[in-house]
Amino acid sequence: MKHFINPNDVDSVEELVQLGLELKADPLKFQHLGRNLTMGLVFFNSSLRTRVSTQKAALNLGMNVIVMNVGSDSWQLEFEDGVIMDQGKAEHVKEAAAVLGQYCDVIGVRAFAGLTDRDEDYKEIVLESFRRYAGVPIVNLESATRHPCQSLADLITIEELKKKERPKVVLTWVPHFKPLPQAVANSFAEWVLKTDYEFVIANPEGYDLAPEIRKDALVMHDQAEAFKGADFIYAKNWSSYEHYGQVLTQDRSWAITEERMALTDDAFFMHCLPVRRGLKVADAVIDGPHSAVIQQAGNRVWSVQAAIKKILEARG
Amino acid sequence: MKHFINPNDVDSVEELVQLGLELKADPLKFQHLGRNLTMGLVFFNSSLRTRVSTQKAALNLGMNVIVMNVGSDSWQLEFEDGVIMDQGKAEHVKEAAAVLGQYCDVIGVRAFAGLTDRDEDYKEIVLESFRRYAGVPIVNLESATRHPCQSLADLITIEELKKKERPKVVLTWVPHFKPLPQAVANSFAEWVLKTDYEFVIANPEGYDLAPEIRKDALVMHDQAEAFKGADFIYAKNWSSYEHYGQVLTQDRSWAITEERMALTDDAFFMHCLPVRRGLKVADAVIDGPHSAVIQQAGNRVWSVQAAIKKILEARG
Amino acid sequence: MKHFINPNDVDSVEELVQLGLELKADPLKFQHLGRNLTMGLVFFNSSLRTRVSTQKAALNLGMNVIVMNVGSDSWQLEFEDGVIMDQGKAEHVKEAAAVLGQYCDVIGVRAFAGLTDRDEDYKEIVLESFRRYAGVPIVNLESATRHPCQSLADLITIEELKKKERPKVVLTWVPHFKPLPQAVANSFAEWVLKTDYEFVIANPEGYDLAPEIRKDALVMHDQAEAFKGADFIYAKNWSSYEHYGQVLTQDRSWAITEERMALTDDAFFMHCLPVRRGLKVADAVIDGPHSAVIQQAGNRVWSVQAAIKKILEARG
Repeated sequence: MKHFINPNDVDSVEELVQLGLELKADPLKFQHLGRNLTMGLVFFNSSLRTRVSTQKAALNLGMNVIVMNVGSDSWQLEFEDGVIMDQGKAEHVKEAAAVLGQYCDVIGVRAFAGLTDRDEDYKEIVLESFRRYAGVPIVNLESATRHPCQSLADLITIEELKKKERPKVVLTWVPHFKPLPQAVANSFAEWVLKTDYEFVIANPEGYDLAPEIRKDALVMHDQAEAFKGADFIYAKNWSSYEHYGQVLTQDRSWAITEERMALTDDAFFMHCLPVRRGLKVADAVIDGPHSAVIQQAGNRVWSVQAAIKKILEARG
Repeated sequence: MKHFINPNDVDSVEELVQLGLELKADPLKFQHLGRNLTMGLVFFNSSLRTRVSTQKAALNLGMNVIVMNVGSDSWQLEFEDGVIMDQGKAEHVKEAAAVLGQYCDVIGVRAFAGLTDRDEDYKEIVLESFRRYAGVPIVNLESATRHPCQSLADLITIEELKKKERPKVVLTWVPHFKPLPQAVANSFAEWVLKTDYEFVIANPEGYDLAPEIRKDALVMHDQAEAFKGADFIYAKNWSSYEHYGQVLTQDRSWAITEERMALTDDAFFMHCLPVRRGLKVADAVIDGPHSAVIQQAGNRVWSVQAAIKKILEARG
Repeated sequence: MKHFINPNDVDSVEELVQLGLELKADPLKFQHLGRNLTMGLVFFNSSLRTRVSTQKAALNLGMNVIVMNVGSDSWQLEFEDGVIMDQGKAEHVKEAAAVLGQYCDVIGVRAFAGLTDRDEDYKEIVLESFRRYAGVPIVNLESATRHPCQSLADLITIEELKKKERPKVVLTWVPHFKPLPQAVANSFAEWVLKTDYEFVIANPEGYDLAPEIRKDALVMHDQAEAFKGADFIYAKNWSSYEHYGQVLTQDRSWAITEERMALTDDAFFMHCLPVRRGLKVADAVIDGPHSAVIQQAGNRVWSVQAAIKKILEARG
């Protein structure tokens, strides 16, 4: 694996999931692999889980880690070609990425969606610029439209918890007052569609994910109906793709309650975190015995460690 | 020792002081103890000494260190139970602490007092939430009402410098224009009261520390009187406990001058730093031969290293 | 070498350049040298290249690294003597530097010019305070008037690329709308003047560098004339020394274009980065085959690693 930016970079989802489980059982097994190599982490946006779990994963692989907060540690970057840089942005990504590539052997990048220009966001200009100019492998630490480290951790968690070979997995929209990116939902859909799980997406009208993402997945606009017989409920808010970046409804009947969960087949509750309690999910659900959120977050170490391990091996 | 949050977590102050001195003599003696373990440092507030000395201590014990600034690196946390999180705070400490506990083997936390609600502050909601939810040992890097890493360094310093078995130690209030927490003063009083030193607290009326902190310590409202025969002067500003968080006086006659120090028995001057020169202490005192402030700050490494060492051993 | 603050701290520029090239060929050769030692990096200003390359260099030498952002991680420092600290600055550099010297074996400091008071800036109050109070070696990570880590990397790059024994090197001012420090230009001039290269400084009237910096270097106010026969074009904006800190002109005819480069002897284009494309240099030049900017940035690792290596050896 050369980069870990989007699903096209991955040969076998199945193999990565198994590798994640193997690393969880023996975290330091490949500590020799990254010895004297440097993992650079570049954050254009805030991070807690990703920041800490990725450092941990790189350290488990024996690497050194250097962390950069763009904006507070450094300055804003320009991404457009051919522009005269006489405004606020002091450096072009062409230089920034190429220079970081001189110092780091692998670079992780986090850069959220702007949510104002759909084409711009879906071009993945930041991550693809790093891929193009850095000269070293890039790991996506959540980009405008994808969050593969999260999705891989999600699949690892489902593999650990599933009670039947082919569980029913429901990705459901939950309400939020702010417009949030589609990255986690997109990524989860893409990755689950590479498994043989039964998969349903539940969201209000106007919230259908991009056609190239959801493909032929079953989309239901009735959450209660979708929950019937589910083994896993994956809750996440996202803003509209159709009316790009807008909050069309904050309908709280879509929040996850005990009553709603009672419709499932004793499903596990999943969420990528951070989660707003009360708003998106009832305390009784997230604190209950079928809540998988902490295990899921813990698995973030093994997912990114699996990705970096594959990258280090391909590096030769 | 399971945690290092308040004095109740400590079996023997005497033993910790001796361990600190031992580590100072041989910093890398226990470097094997933390090999491949991760120390997470979570800062809700600014830090210089604590930030750097704790990293140094963890490195001396062979640990990896991951640092998080809440607010700039990440987002604000919610601490209340049962709340509907539809305001600025994006994540509940229940998840944040539990997740960090998945990645880190020991977590240090700094979270200052709000100084508006006394009951709230004295409940130590941040540190106690981490104790409750993280699932791993917690080190107090200064909380609302305690600063045990500082107090242990203070006792180490007194042990190094004392010229008699049972020195007279004076904790004195000094003026400041801003309301400051009681944490350092509280902690120093509690820790000194666990030794057999002679102990006097000097502060203006209205500045008595909490009764459960000062216990039966001698409190004097006349600084000059208190200084007589003192071997150590520990200067610190704090805001009122009685009129909680208020600045009742900025009386500059309480600043530490050469004249005032002349009343002591050649006492050493101590302060936890940062200190505002001119305002709290005369340059001649802090720059003089009896100033212990740099040695005291240097001992911050050995105090927190002693605490972490005890925690690593108890972890088994 | 005791410190690496200004050219007076350096015995032999030639030797440092050779050491840099040696380290580039074998980065981990001296990894034993810094084992269990701590490099502290203190940033009063933003940084990308310096931040990451210095961490990398210290890691290559086997050191641990602790990074501090003054202002966001910590608080503002006071540098004046004898002041009553009753304003915004919470700690004096006397304590801050001395305390960091207790925790770190070598300290790197970045602190830009204020550009309002020339005497103040040229006294180098921040760096010289650290030299005076820290008690450990100091590395200049760009100060008010010097950037030796950059200049050494620049000379390493010229040595790698030069096609004749004594190349013609031109330092040229380029336009910018904001007042920028003279540090990079000053330093480059000082360091080149310690070599036997042919050296010309090109800048508009009113932009002559300080007399004690440029010494007897040839200063030309006609860029086209200066470029004739040049082997290296080093572009950099700086604000006026004479009318201190002012932007006297933004004359875009001083930007580096292909036409202007055609006057040289196939010169390499150099810039310390970040660079504003379009404003200071045409895309065709910086993206062209004679652009040395990425190689130059890459050499930042070897320059600061050479400096730290010399310091560690002198430390004994």
